[in-house]
Amino acid sequence: MNRQQLAEQIRKKQSYLCVGLDTDITKIPAHLLSEPNPVLTFNRAIMEATADLCVAYKPNTAFYESLGSEGWQTLEQTLAAVPQDILTIADAKRGDIGNTSAMYARAFFEQMNVDAVTVAPYMGADSVKPFLGFRDKWAIVLALTSNAGSADFQTLNLEKEQTRLYETVIQKCMLWASADELMFVVGATQAAQIAHIRSLAPDYFFLVPGVGAQGGDLEEVSRLGFNQSVGLLVNASRSILYASSGKDFAEKARAEAKRLQQQMQDCLEKYL
Amino acid sequence: MNRQQLAEQIRKKQSYLCVGLDTDITKIPAHLLSEPNPVLTFNRAIMEATADLCVAYKPNTAFYESLGSEGWQTLEQTLAAVPQDILTIADAKRGDIGNTSAMYARAFFEQMNVDAVTVAPYMGADSVKPFLGFRDKWAIVLALTSNAGSADFQTLNLEKEQTRLYETVIQKCMLWASADELMFVVGATQAAQIAHIRSLAPDYFFLVPGVGAQGGDLEEVSRLGFNQSVGLLVNASRSILYASSGKDFAEKARAEAKRLQQQMQDCLEKYL
Repeated sequence: MNRQQLAEQIRKKQSYLCVGLDTDITKIPAHLLSEPNPVLTFNRAIMEATADLCVAYKPNTAFYESLGSEGWQTLEQTLAAVPQDILTIADAKRGDIGNTSAMYARAFFEQMNVDAVTVAPYMGADSVKPFLGFRDKWAIVLALTSNAGSADFQTLNLEKEQTRLYETVIQKCMLWASADELMFVVGATQAAQIAHIRSLAPDYFFLVPGVGAQGGDLEEVSRLGFNQSVGLLVNASRSILYASSGKDFAEKARAEAKRLQQQMQDCLEKYL
Repeated sequence: MNRQQLAEQIRKKQSYLCVGLDTDITKIPAHLLSEPNPVLTFNRAIMEATADLCVAYKPNTAFYESLGSEGWQTLEQTLAAVPQDILTIADAKRGDIGNTSAMYARAFFEQMNVDAVTVAPYMGADSVKPFLGFRDKWAIVLALTSNAGSADFQTLNLEKEQTRLYETVIQKCMLWASADELMFVVGATQAAQIAHIRSLAPDYFFLVPGVGAQGGDLEEVSRLGFNQSVGLLVNASRSILYASSGKDFAEKARAEAKRLQQQMQDCLEKYL
């Protein structure tokens, strides 16, 4: 999916919601555990309940890997069940030396056919560039993340560059790729920084986790983070997936997704 | 496997060789492609040919993920075939917010039962700590990597800390975990830095990739990197795996592993 198509979906659905499929088998409703594949059944039900309210699904590879090769198969089956007009993001945070990153790109873009994959920047240019140059595919590089640990390295000041580390990550990555194939992860818990980051990277989409269970403020993030073509994908995972642990889990997940979509529609009217 | 057991294996085999199982189906000998599982057949042959010469096997997850869920199964089968007295390292370079890193730790340490997993530090403490506290298991954190991109961020100078980024990574990680459960990745292509890094972290094992195809110098690395209990695992992948593309691939792989082991034995005599 390219940038124009993504912007069209956002306009049409009045939503920039990404639903994180961090599906934890120990947290899904007990009545699903008798199904042949509880996680897949759960994911399909969540997607049926939310597909008209969101523009992206983001399975987190850790949750599938924790179930071994069967989990990996469930990840493939989950991705295959995503409707064509919804962006798929493998939240994998990969990154390695060139020939290995090229292998990861092949795994996610070719073997699994996702639209986007999250990439960790620590290993630099040759770890990021192999994820570029795939038609209508995206690398989403970690810039400033939503967790407490983001203060350990990402916000340290660099002497010569006179920036914080994450700012140099953004600046270097922008030299490597345009806004047509690169996005940045910017945590919603860092709302104070988001206007600044928008000024650094005016045209790029930001994938914003941290709304919901992690406590980020959707309205603040939207007000400070929008660019002219929205430029945000805001992710919620746990608050949607585990809105109920009963038989009404899909209905309650839809209600939470609907609440977020309506808040997004309001923000689009107010701030765009 | 704990630190003492690893040191014993090194002494016994006079080797600190780690064989990287970065098995690329497009590079293995053509005659194997008619096998039901060419990658597994190849890996088993490589392990039979080298098990007495090395102390660790390090499959790189990218190469298995590029083959989808069947590849992931091959990874599991490969790990299951590693002899008990050899350390297994999942070269996965994972790292995410706390609850997700915990899921990765479960995937590798419990589901897959590897001894060690490589971890990317960009997301800080709560992305690293979930890999700690597993009995006789190891987190191996990226410090200074072997690739050109290591100069993009890892070696930038930090203003307040008056160190380069990778030095602060090492210093902070040492606050989080002892040398009994933490190692560092230090690229062999960075031999000039290795004495300095040893002075920062005297007791910790370093996993050293970059000897072989990437051009690092084993003797230099050993001379500068040894501590009193060796403290090095030196990895070679491509130079062993693809020593021959013919039917003699395992024999040639053994010859290359043997050459490295003998060089290691010499280094142990000369420098320890």
